[in-house]
Amino acid sequence: MKIGILGTGMVGQTIAEKLVQLGHQVMMGTRDKKATLTKTGKDNFGRPVFGEWIKKNSKVQLGTYSEAASFGEFLVNATSGIGTVDALKAAGENNLANKVLLDISNPLDFSKGMPPSLTICNTDSLGEQIQRTFPKTKVVKSLNTLNAYLMTNPKLLPERTNIFLNGNDSNAKAEIKNLLISFGWNENDVIDMGDISTARGTEQILPIWIRLMGTLQTPIFNFKIVIGGK
Amino acid sequence: MKIGILGTGMVGQTIAEKLVQLGHQVMMGTRDKKATLTKTGKDNFGRPVFGEWIKKNSKVQLGTYSEAASFGEFLVNATSGIGTVDALKAAGENNLANKVLLDISNPLDFSKGMPPSLTICNTDSLGEQIQRTFPKTKVVKSLNTLNAYLMTNPKLLPERTNIFLNGNDSNAKAEIKNLLISFGWNENDVIDMGDISTARGTEQILPIWIRLMGTLQTPIFNFKIVIGGK
Repeated sequence: MKIGILGTGMVGQTIAEKLVQLGHQVMMGTRDKKATLTKTGKDNFGRPVFGEWIKKNSKVQLGTYSEAASFGEFLVNATSGIGTVDALKAAGENNLANKVLLDISNPLDFSKGMPPSLTICNTDSLGEQIQRTFPKTKVVKSLNTLNAYLMTNPKLLPERTNIFLNGNDSNAKAEIKNLLISFGWNENDVIDMGDISTARGTEQILPIWIRLMGTLQTPIFNFKIVIGGK
Repeated sequence: MKIGILGTGMVGQTIAEKLVQLGHQVMMGTRDKKATLTKTGKDNFGRPVFGEWIKKNSKVQLGTYSEAASFGEFLVNATSGIGTVDALKAAGENNLANKVLLDISNPLDFSKGMPPSLTICNTDSLGEQIQRTFPKTKVVKSLNTLNAYLMTNPKLLPERTNIFLNGNDSNAKAEIKNLLISFGWNENDVIDMGDISTARGTEQILPIWIRLMGTLQTPIFNFKIVIGGK
Protein backbone atom coordinates (compact mmCIF):
# COMPACT_ATOMS: atom_id res chain seq x y z
CA MET A 1 0.00 0.00 0.00
CA LYS A 2 1.12 3.58 -0.62
CA ILE A 3 1.37 5.33 2.72
CA GLY A 4 2.08 8.99 3.42
CA ILE A 5 3.56 9.94 6.77
CA LEU A 6 3.41 13.58 7.85
CA GLY A 7 6.34 14.40 10.11
CA THR A 8 9.97 13.25 9.96
CA GLY A 9 10.83 12.94 13.66
CA MET A 10 11.35 9.85 15.77
CA VAL A 11 7.74 8.69 15.56
CA GLY A 12 7.57 9.12 11.79
CA GLN A 13 10.91 7.37 11.30
CA THR A 14 9.96 4.40 13.47
CA ILE A 15 6.62 3.95 11.73
CA ALA A 16 8.28 4.36 8.30
CA GLU A 17 10.89 1.66 9.04
CA LYS A 18 8.20 -0.79 10.08
CA LEU A 19 5.97 -0.02 7.09
CA VAL A 20 8.87 -0.54 4.67
CA GLN A 21 9.68 -3.87 6.39
CA LEU A 22 6.06 -4.87 5.88
CA GLY A 23 6.36 -4.15 2.16
CA HIS A 24 4.54 -0.83 1.96
CA GLN A 25 5.67 2.13 -0.19
CA VAL A 26 6.30 5.11 2.06
CA MET A 27 6.66 8.82 1.43
CA MET A 28 7.34 11.06 4.41
CA GLY A 29 6.26 14.69 4.28
CA THR A 30 7.96 17.71 5.76
CA ARG A 31 7.63 21.46 5.64
CA ASP A 32 11.01 22.09 4.02
CA LYS A 33 12.60 19.16 2.19
CA LYS A 34 16.01 20.73 1.82
CA ALA A 35 16.30 21.69 5.49
CA THR A 36 15.13 18.23 6.59
CA LEU A 37 17.60 16.43 4.30
CA THR A 38 20.63 18.52 5.16
CA LYS A 39 20.18 18.41 8.94
CA THR A 40 22.86 16.16 10.43
CA GLY A 41 23.92 14.95 13.85
CA LYS A 42 21.81 13.55 16.66
CA ASP A 43 18.61 14.69 18.32
CA ASN A 44 18.16 15.27 22.07
CA PHE A 45 17.73 11.54 22.58
CA GLY A 46 20.94 10.60 20.77
CA ARG A 47 19.14 9.37 17.67
CA PRO A 48 20.37 10.34 14.19
CA VAL A 49 18.28 13.16 12.74
CA PHE A 50 16.50 12.67 9.42
CA GLY A 51 19.44 13.62 7.19
CA GLU A 52 21.45 10.76 8.73
CA TRP A 53 18.57 8.33 9.17
CA ILE A 54 17.52 8.49 5.50
CA LYS A 55 20.92 7.20 4.36
CA LYS A 56 20.08 3.82 5.91
CA ASN A 57 16.43 3.96 4.90
CA SER A 58 16.74 4.78 1.26
CA LYS A 59 13.47 3.07 0.29
CA VAL A 60 11.63 5.90 2.04
CA GLN A 61 10.86 8.86 -0.19
CA LEU A 62 10.79 12.40 1.12
CA GLY A 63 8.27 14.97 -0.09
CA THR A 64 6.51 18.08 1.08
CA TYR A 65 3.48 17.64 3.32
CA SER A 66 1.35 18.06 0.21
CA GLU A 67 3.32 15.54 -1.86
CA ALA A 68 3.25 12.91 0.90
CA ALA A 69 -0.48 13.40 1.47
CA SER A 70 -1.18 13.16 -2.24
CA PHE A 71 1.01 10.04 -2.54
CA GLY A 72 -0.61 8.11 0.31
CA GLU A 73 -3.78 6.07 -0.03
CA PHE A 74 -3.50 5.90 3.74
CA LEU A 75 -2.00 8.62 5.94
CA VAL A 76 -0.21 8.86 9.26
CA ASN A 77 0.04 12.07 11.29
CA ALA A 78 3.35 11.95 13.16
CA THR A 79 3.85 15.70 13.48
CA SER A 80 4.23 17.32 16.89
CA GLY A 81 0.84 18.30 18.25
CA ILE A 82 1.55 22.00 18.38
CA GLY A 83 2.13 22.06 14.59
CA THR A 84 -0.34 19.39 13.53
CA VAL A 85 -3.21 21.49 12.22
CA ASP A 86 -0.86 23.76 10.24
CA ALA A 87 0.95 20.74 8.79
CA LEU A 88 -2.36 19.16 7.76
CA LYS A 89 -3.49 22.43 6.18
CA ALA A 90 -0.22 22.53 4.25
CA ALA A 91 -0.88 18.93 3.19
CA GLY A 92 -4.11 20.17 1.63
CA GLU A 93 -7.72 19.33 2.44
CA ASN A 94 -8.23 17.62 -0.93
CA ASN A 95 -5.21 15.38 -0.44
CA LEU A 96 -6.62 14.28 2.92
CA ALA A 97 -10.23 13.84 1.84
CA ASN A 98 -11.82 10.37 1.97
CA LYS A 99 -8.66 8.82 3.39
CA VAL A 100 -7.98 7.21 6.74
CA LEU A 101 -5.61 9.27 8.87
CA LEU A 102 -3.90 7.51 11.76
CA ASP A 103 -3.31 10.36 14.21
CA ILE A 104 -0.44 9.71 16.64
CA SER A 105 0.03 13.32 17.71
CA ASN A 106 -0.28 14.68 21.23
CA PRO A 107 -1.12 18.28 22.15
CA LEU A 108 2.03 18.78 24.22
CA ASP A 109 3.22 22.28 25.01
CA PHE A 110 6.94 22.34 25.86
CA SER A 111 7.14 26.14 25.66
CA LYS A 112 6.93 26.57 29.44
CA GLY A 113 9.55 23.92 30.23
CA MET A 114 9.27 20.39 31.58
CA PRO A 115 7.02 18.65 32.21
CA PRO A 116 4.94 19.89 29.27
CA SER A 117 1.30 20.87 29.69
CA LEU A 118 -1.42 20.22 27.12
CA THR A 119 -2.46 22.85 24.54
CA ILE A 120 -5.95 21.38 24.45
CA CYS A 121 -7.71 19.06 26.91
CA ASN A 122 -10.70 18.27 29.10
CA THR A 123 -13.67 19.39 26.94
CA ASP A 124 -11.87 19.03 23.61
CA SER A 125 -8.95 17.11 22.13
CA LEU A 126 -6.50 17.39 19.27
CA GLY A 127 -8.11 14.36 17.63
CA GLU A 128 -11.47 16.14 17.60
CA GLN A 129 -9.90 19.35 16.37
CA ILE A 130 -8.37 17.51 13.40
CA GLN A 131 -11.67 15.74 12.65
CA ARG A 132 -13.60 19.05 12.80
CA THR A 133 -11.06 20.82 10.58
CA PHE A 134 -11.03 18.00 7.99
CA PRO A 135 -14.54 16.53 8.10
CA LYS A 136 -14.02 14.38 4.98
CA THR A 137 -10.99 12.63 6.50
CA LYS A 138 -11.49 9.49 8.60
CA VAL A 139 -9.43 10.34 11.66
CA VAL A 140 -8.46 7.51 14.00
CA LYS A 141 -6.35 8.33 17.01
CA SER A 142 -4.08 5.53 18.20
CA LEU A 143 -0.50 4.79 19.30
CA ASN A 144 -0.20 8.19 21.01
CA THR A 145 0.00 6.62 24.46
CA LEU A 146 3.40 4.99 24.27
CA ASN A 147 7.00 5.32 23.12
CA ALA A 148 7.71 5.05 19.38
CA TYR A 149 9.82 1.90 19.75
CA LEU A 150 6.90 0.13 21.42
CA MET A 151 4.39 1.27 18.78
CA THR A 152 5.95 -1.04 16.22
CA ASN A 153 7.45 -3.56 18.61
CA PRO A 154 5.08 -4.23 21.53
CA LYS A 155 6.93 -7.46 22.31
CA LEU A 156 9.79 -5.39 23.74
CA LEU A 157 7.69 -5.53 26.91
CA PRO A 158 7.62 -8.66 29.08
CA GLU A 159 3.81 -8.80 29.06
CA ARG A 160 1.02 -7.92 26.67
CA THR A 161 -0.30 -4.39 27.20
CA ASN A 162 -3.11 -2.28 25.74
CA ILE A 163 -3.52 0.20 22.96
CA PHE A 164 -6.55 2.38 22.24
CA LEU A 165 -8.57 3.43 19.19
CA ASN A 166 -10.64 6.63 19.03
CA GLY A 167 -12.57 7.49 15.89
CA ASN A 168 -15.98 7.99 14.31
CA ASP A 169 -15.65 5.54 11.41
CA SER A 170 -15.86 1.82 12.22
CA ASN A 171 -14.28 0.71 8.95
CA ALA A 172 -11.37 3.08 9.45
CA LYS A 173 -10.88 1.72 12.98
CA ALA A 174 -10.94 -1.83 11.63
CA GLU A 175 -8.24 -0.85 9.13
CA ILE A 176 -6.06 0.66 11.88
CA LYS A 177 -6.60 -2.41 14.02
CA ASN A 178 -5.28 -4.58 11.18
CA LEU A 179 -2.29 -2.30 10.83
CA LEU A 180 -1.62 -2.64 14.57
CA ILE A 181 -1.84 -6.43 14.30
CA SER A 182 0.73 -6.29 11.47
CA PHE A 183 2.93 -4.27 13.86
CA GLY A 184 2.81 -7.15 16.38
CA TRP A 185 -0.16 -6.19 18.55
CA ASN A 186 -2.57 -8.88 19.70
CA GLU A 187 -6.05 -8.06 18.47
CA ASN A 188 -7.50 -8.62 21.94
CA ASP A 189 -5.27 -5.89 23.32
CA VAL A 190 -6.65 -3.19 21.03
CA ILE A 191 -9.44 -1.35 22.87
CA ASP A 192 -11.96 0.57 20.76
CA MET A 193 -12.92 3.45 23.06
CA GLY A 194 -15.65 4.87 20.80
CA ASP A 195 -15.97 8.03 18.74
CA ILE A 196 -13.26 10.64 18.31
CA SER A 197 -14.35 12.52 21.47
CA THR A 198 -12.89 9.63 23.48
CA ALA A 199 -9.48 10.95 22.41
CA ARG A 200 -9.94 13.32 25.39
CA GLY A 201 -9.23 10.28 27.54
CA THR A 202 -6.22 8.93 25.68
CA GLU A 203 -4.58 12.33 25.19
CA GLN A 204 -4.96 13.12 28.89
CA ILE A 205 -2.93 10.02 29.74
CA LEU A 206 0.12 11.96 28.60
CA PRO A 207 0.55 13.97 31.82
CA ILE A 208 0.98 10.79 33.86
CA TRP A 209 2.95 9.08 31.08
CA ILE A 210 5.55 11.86 31.09
CA ARG A 211 5.87 11.81 34.89
CA LEU A 212 6.12 8.01 34.91
CA MET A 213 8.96 8.21 32.39
CA GLY A 214 10.81 10.36 34.93
CA THR A 215 9.95 8.16 37.91
CA LEU A 216 10.71 4.88 36.16
CA GLN A 217 13.77 6.31 34.37
CA THR A 218 12.76 4.73 31.07
CA PRO A 219 10.27 5.46 28.28
CA ILE A 220 9.88 1.71 27.63
CA PHE A 221 6.66 0.99 29.51
CA ASN A 222 2.97 0.81 28.77
CA PHE A 223 -0.40 0.49 30.47
CA LYS A 224 -2.08 -2.87 30.83
CA ILE A 225 -5.72 -2.77 31.83
CA VAL A 226 -6.32 -5.57 34.33
CA ILE A 227 -10.02 -6.45 34.56
CA GLY A 228 -11.74 -8.23 37.45
CA GLY A 229 -14.72 -10.54 37.67
CA LYS A 230 -17.81 -9.20 35.96
CA MET B 1 -5.43 5.00 65.43
CA LYS B 2 -8.19 7.62 65.43
CA ILE B 3 -9.10 8.40 61.85
CA GLY B 4 -11.47 11.05 60.54
CA ILE B 5 -13.05 10.51 57.13
CA LEU B 6 -14.64 13.50 55.41
CA GLY B 7 -17.48 12.37 53.17
CA THR B 8 -20.09 9.65 53.71
CA GLY B 9 -20.52 8.28 50.17
CA MET B 10 -19.38 5.01 48.67
CA VAL B 11 -15.66 5.82 48.93
CA GLY B 12 -15.90 6.97 52.54
CA GLN B 13 -17.98 3.93 53.51
CA THR B 14 -15.61 1.45 51.87
CA ILE B 15 -12.56 3.00 53.51
CA ALA B 16 -14.37 3.18 56.87
CA GLU B 17 -15.32 -0.53 56.76
CA LYS B 18 -11.72 -1.50 56.07
CA LEU B 19 -10.30 0.79 58.75
CA VAL B 20 -12.69 -0.64 61.36
CA GLN B 21 -11.71 -4.19 60.31
CA LEU B 22 -8.09 -3.19 60.83
CA GLY B 23 -8.87 -2.04 64.37
CA HIS B 24 -8.90 1.73 63.88
CA GLN B 25 -11.43 4.08 65.48
CA VAL B 26 -13.32 5.90 62.78
CA MET B 27 -15.47 9.03 62.71
CA MET B 28 -17.01 10.07 59.43
CA GLY B 29 -17.82 13.72 58.83
CA THR B 30 -20.72 15.20 56.92
CA ARG B 31 -22.26 18.62 56.32
CA ASP B 32 -25.60 17.76 57.95
CA LYS B 33 -25.63 14.82 60.36
CA LYS B 34 -29.39 14.57 60.59
CA ALA B 35 -29.92 14.59 56.83
CA THR B 36 -27.17 11.99 56.33
CA LEU B 37 -28.56 9.69 59.02
CA THR B 38 -32.18 9.85 57.93
CA LYS B 39 -31.55 9.28 54.22
CA THR B 40 -32.73 5.78 53.31
CA GLY B 41 -32.87 3.57 50.23
CA LYS B 42 -30.23 2.90 47.63
CA ASP B 43 -27.92 5.12 45.64
CA ASN B 44 -27.63 5.15 41.82
CA PHE B 45 -25.39 2.09 41.99
CA GLY B 46 -27.83 0.03 44.10
CA ARG B 47 -25.82 0.45 47.29
CA PRO B 48 -27.52 1.32 50.58
CA VAL B 49 -27.15 5.02 51.40
CA PHE B 50 -25.54 6.07 54.65
CA GLY B 51 -28.68 5.87 56.81
CA GLU B 52 -28.97 2.15 55.91
CA TRP B 53 -25.25 1.40 55.78
CA ILE B 54 -24.57 2.72 59.29
CA LYS B 55 -26.97 0.17 60.82
CA LYS B 56 -24.52 -2.60 59.87
CA ASN B 57 -21.45 -0.52 60.67
CA SER B 58 -22.30 0.69 64.12
CA LYS B 59 -18.66 1.01 65.22
CA VAL B 60 -18.35 3.99 62.90
CA GLN B 61 -19.23 7.31 64.50
CA LEU B 62 -20.84 10.14 62.57
CA GLY B 63 -19.93 13.77 63.15
CA THR B 64 -19.86 17.07 61.37
CA TYR B 65 -16.89 17.78 59.12
CA SER B 66 -15.38 19.73 61.97
CA GLU B 67 -15.99 17.00 64.57
CA ALA B 68 -14.51 14.28 62.35
CA ALA B 69 -11.46 16.41 61.51
CA SER B 70 -10.92 17.22 65.17
CA PHE B 71 -11.33 13.54 66.14
CA GLY B 72 -8.84 12.17 63.64
CA GLU B 73 -5.08 12.03 64.18
CA PHE B 74 -5.07 11.05 60.53
CA LEU B 75 -7.59 12.26 57.93
CA VAL B 76 -9.11 10.98 54.71
CA ASN B 77 -10.79 13.23 52.15
CA ALA B 78 -13.51 11.18 50.49
CA THR B 79 -15.76 14.08 49.50
CA SER B 80 -16.71 14.66 45.89
CA GLY B 81 -14.17 16.91 44.22
CA ILE B 82 -16.58 19.70 43.44
CA GLY B 83 -17.31 20.15 47.17
CA THR B 84 -13.90 19.27 48.60
CA VAL B 85 -12.50 22.70 49.36
CA ASP B 86 -15.73 23.85 50.99
CA ALA B 87 -15.91 20.65 53.04
CA LEU B 88 -12.32 21.11 54.21
CA LYS B 89 -12.99 24.74 55.10
CA ALA B 90 -16.00 23.59 57.13
CA ALA B 91 -13.72 21.03 58.81
CA GLY B 92 -11.58 23.93 59.95
CA GLU B 93 -8.00 24.82 59.14
CA ASN B 94 -6.88 24.23 62.74
CA ASN B 95 -8.39 20.75 62.80
CA LEU B 96 -6.45 19.89 59.64
CA ALA B 97 -3.14 21.47 60.63
CA ASN B 98 -0.06 19.24 61.04
CA LYS B 99 -2.01 16.13 60.07
CA VAL B 100 -1.64 13.79 57.13
CA LEU B 101 -4.62 14.03 54.76
CA LEU B 102 -5.11 11.16 52.33
CA ASP B 103 -6.88 12.88 49.43
CA ILE B 104 -8.95 10.47 47.31
CA SER B 105 -11.07 13.14 45.62
CA ASN B 106 -11.28 13.81 41.90
CA PRO B 107 -12.26 17.13 40.30
CA LEU B 108 -15.16 15.65 38.33
CA ASP B 109 -17.86 17.93 36.96
CA PHE B 110 -21.08 16.00 36.29
CA SER B 111 -23.13 19.19 35.81
CA LYS B 112 -22.98 18.96 32.01
CA GLY B 113 -23.93 15.29 31.85
CA MET B 114 -21.90 12.16 31.15
CA PRO B 115 -19.05 11.66 30.74
CA PRO B 116 -17.99 14.27 33.30
CA SER B 117 -15.27 16.79 32.54
CA LEU B 118 -12.71 18.03 35.06
CA THR B 119 -13.21 21.24 37.05
CA ILE B 120 -9.45 21.71 37.25
CA CYS B 121 -6.68 20.13 35.17
CA ASN B 122 -3.56 20.52 33.01
CA THR B 123 -1.64 23.30 34.79
CA ASP B 124 -3.20 22.73 38.21
CA SER B 125 -4.87 19.93 40.15
CA LEU B 126 -7.27 19.52 43.02
CA GLY B 127 -4.48 18.02 45.11
CA GLU B 128 -2.40 21.16 44.66
CA GLN B 129 -5.40 23.38 45.35
CA ILE B 130 -5.99 21.60 48.67
CA GLN B 131 -2.29 21.82 49.58
CA ARG B 132 -2.21 25.56 48.76
CA THR B 133 -5.39 26.24 50.73
CA PHE B 134 -4.16 24.29 53.79
CA PRO B 135 -0.38 24.71 53.78
CA LYS B 136 0.05 23.19 57.26
CA THR B 137 -1.67 19.96 56.23
CA LYS B 138 0.40 17.12 54.71
CA VAL B 139 -1.67 16.30 51.65
CA VAL B 140 -1.01 12.97 49.92
CA LYS B 141 -3.12 12.11 46.92
CA SER B 142 -3.68 8.40 46.36
CA LEU B 143 -6.39 5.81 45.59
CA ASN B 144 -8.22 8.27 43.31
CA THR B 145 -7.47 6.20 40.20
CA LEU B 146 -9.64 3.18 40.86
CA ASN B 147 -13.00 1.94 42.09
CA ALA B 148 -13.68 2.03 45.84
CA TYR B 149 -13.96 -1.77 46.16
CA LEU B 150 -10.47 -2.15 44.70
CA MET B 151 -8.98 0.52 46.96
CA THR B 152 -9.33 -1.74 49.98
CA ASN B 153 -9.29 -5.07 48.16
CA PRO B 154 -6.77 -5.01 45.30
CA LYS B 155 -6.77 -8.82 45.21
CA LEU B 156 -10.20 -8.70 43.57
CA LEU B 157 -8.16 -8.37 40.37
CA PRO B 158 -6.46 -11.40 38.81
CA GLU B 159 -3.06 -9.66 38.69
CA ARG B 160 -1.18 -7.12 40.73
CA THR B 161 -1.73 -3.57 39.51
CA ASN B 162 -0.37 -0.13 40.42
CA ILE B 163 -1.35 2.71 42.69
CA PHE B 164 0.20 6.18 42.86
CA LEU B 165 1.31 8.60 45.56
CA ASN B 166 1.57 12.38 45.05
CA GLY B 167 2.66 14.62 47.87
CA ASN B 168 5.31 16.99 49.18
CA ASP B 169 6.08 15.27 52.49
CA SER B 170 8.11 12.04 52.37
CA ASN B 171 7.10 10.92 55.85
CA ALA B 172 3.45 11.44 55.06
CA LYS B 173 3.85 9.40 51.87
CA ALA B 174 5.56 6.63 53.83
CA GLU B 175 2.61 6.62 56.23
CA ILE B 176 0.11 6.35 53.37
CA LYS B 177 2.18 3.59 51.81
CA ASN B 178 1.94 1.62 55.04
CA LEU B 179 -1.79 2.17 55.11
CA LEU B 180 -2.03 0.88 51.52
CA ILE B 181 -0.01 -2.20 52.47
CA SER B 182 -2.45 -2.81 55.34
CA PHE B 183 -5.25 -2.61 52.74
CA GLY B 184 -3.63 -5.46 50.79
CA TRP B 185 -1.38 -3.60 48.34
CA ASN B 186 2.08 -4.94 47.59
CA GLU B 187 4.67 -2.31 48.49
CA ASN B 188 6.36 -2.72 45.10
CA ASP B 189 3.15 -1.72 43.34
CA VAL B 190 2.94 1.67 45.05
CA ILE B 191 4.57 4.28 42.77
CA ASP B 192 5.73 7.52 44.39
CA MET B 193 5.28 10.04 41.55
CA GLY B 194 6.85 12.97 43.38
CA ASP B 195 5.51 16.21 44.81
CA ILE B 196 1.85 17.20 44.88
CA SER B 197 2.04 18.76 41.40
CA THR B 198 2.28 15.22 40.02
CA ALA B 199 -1.39 14.90 40.99
CA ARG B 200 -2.00 16.58 37.61
CA GLY B 201 -1.04 13.27 36.07
CA THR B 202 -3.09 10.98 38.29
CA GLU B 203 -6.21 13.18 38.24
CA GLN B 204 -6.09 13.37 34.45
CA ILE B 205 -6.30 9.57 34.27
CA LEU B 206 -9.97 9.95 35.18
CA PRO B 207 -11.16 10.88 31.68
CA ILE B 208 -9.91 7.58 30.27
CA TRP B 209 -10.93 5.67 33.39
CA ILE B 210 -14.54 6.77 32.99
CA ARG B 211 -14.61 5.88 29.30
CA LEU B 212 -12.97 2.51 29.99
CA MET B 213 -15.68 1.76 32.56
CA GLY B 214 -18.22 2.24 29.77
CA THR B 215 -16.26 0.24 27.19
CA LEU B 216 -15.40 -2.63 29.55
CA GLN B 217 -18.85 -2.55 31.20
CA THR B 218 -17.37 -2.82 34.67
CA PRO B 219 -15.67 -0.48 37.16
CA ILE B 220 -13.56 -3.37 38.46
CA PHE B 221 -10.32 -2.76 36.59
CA ASN B 222 -7.03 -0.99 37.18
CA PHE B 223 -3.85 0.07 35.41
CA LYS B 224 -0.73 -2.05 35.57
CA ILE B 225 2.45 -0.37 34.40
CA VAL B 226 4.45 -2.93 32.42
CA ILE B 227 8.10 -1.93 32.18
CA GLY B 228 10.60 -3.13 29.58
CA GLY B 229 14.34 -3.74 29.64
CA LYS B 230 16.32 -0.83 30.98
